[in-house]
Amino acid sequence: MKMQSLQDLMLDVLKDTYDAEHQITKALPKMITAVKSPQLKKAFETHLHQTEEQIRTVESIFEMLGEKPSRKKCDGMAGLLKEGDHIIEEGGDPDVLDASLLAAAQKVEHYEISAYGTLRTWANQLGHRDIALMFDQLNRQEEETDQLLTQLAESRINQKAQ
Amino acid sequence: MKMQSLQDLMLDVLKDTYDAEHQITKALPKMITAVKSPQLKKAFETHLHQTEEQIRTVESIFEMLGEKPSRKKCDGMAGLLKEGDHIIEEGGDPDVLDASLLAAAQKVEHYEISAYGTLRTWANQLGHRDIALMFDQLNRQEEETDQLLTQLAESRINQKAQ
Repeated sequence: MKMQSLQDLMLDVLKDTYDAEHQITKALPKMITAVKSPQLKKAFETHLHQTEEQIRTVESIFEMLGEKPSRKKCDGMAGLLKEGDHIIEEGGDPDVLDASLLAAAQKVEHYEISAYGTLRTWANQLGHRDIALMFDQLNRQEEETDQLLTQLAESRINQKAQ
Repeated sequence: MKMQSLQDLMLDVLKDTYDAEHQITKALPKMITAVKSPQLKKAFETHLHQTEEQIRTVESIFEMLGEKPSRKKCDGMAGLLKEGDHIIEEGGDPDVLDASLLAAAQKVEHYEISAYGTLRTWANQLGHRDIALMFDQLNRQEEETDQLLTQLAESRINQKAQ
């Protein structure tokens, strides 16, 4: 599909991001099972619930744009989650596996921070102020999750892996 | 390969990131050719030179760790760059294509921000203070590139696509 306007492009990236969020809800349960640290398990569980809520928020945005929610295969997220799958398959010391999956999860968060930041900019430029605020909230949630994961990485998780 | 220590893991992620940087040097020339905006073209060109320098910095880090530089296929970056390829193949309005490739480039930057941030944390925890400082510098360079791209996105590039 050729992109002829910023509105087309925003909708296209929204479909891609909606697919990415669905991919994350499939991947997180495997990551929750694989990790050993109770704090990291809890952080992933909280993020799973948050991702399910974010999917509903994205569905509301589709409706506000007069569109039915639909997915477009997100290759970027597929590649990032393949890294997580490899980590689980390869195995190794449990504390090192925790540090490795935590790092993989932060790459996923950064993908979403970037996606929602871009969507916020475009929504503002297209004059969709209410939708821009919703993207801003999604962007902030992902940034908070990333910061929580950084705190875990800097604290006990990696100390144990050392 | 099973990861048995944080040192093993750091080396593994370094090989992955070294591969990612090489993938970027292959992708950027196609993106430079595809974009219309002179500012965006210049930003991509500057980032290509910077990426080549970063590859040399990563090679120095391998040497400081007593290892030969080697690559491990980075699936995450491959997925992200596949998105950029699709954008170029699909084509469309030139200003919209610029906005789209700019967004794809920011996802690439965020991957690297996350990778170097993680490597910095691990190097500090392993007591490699000099290497941690080098990762910190790489992380900051990627953040600066991302901020420059955000400025371009918020200014004229997307205004034209509207």
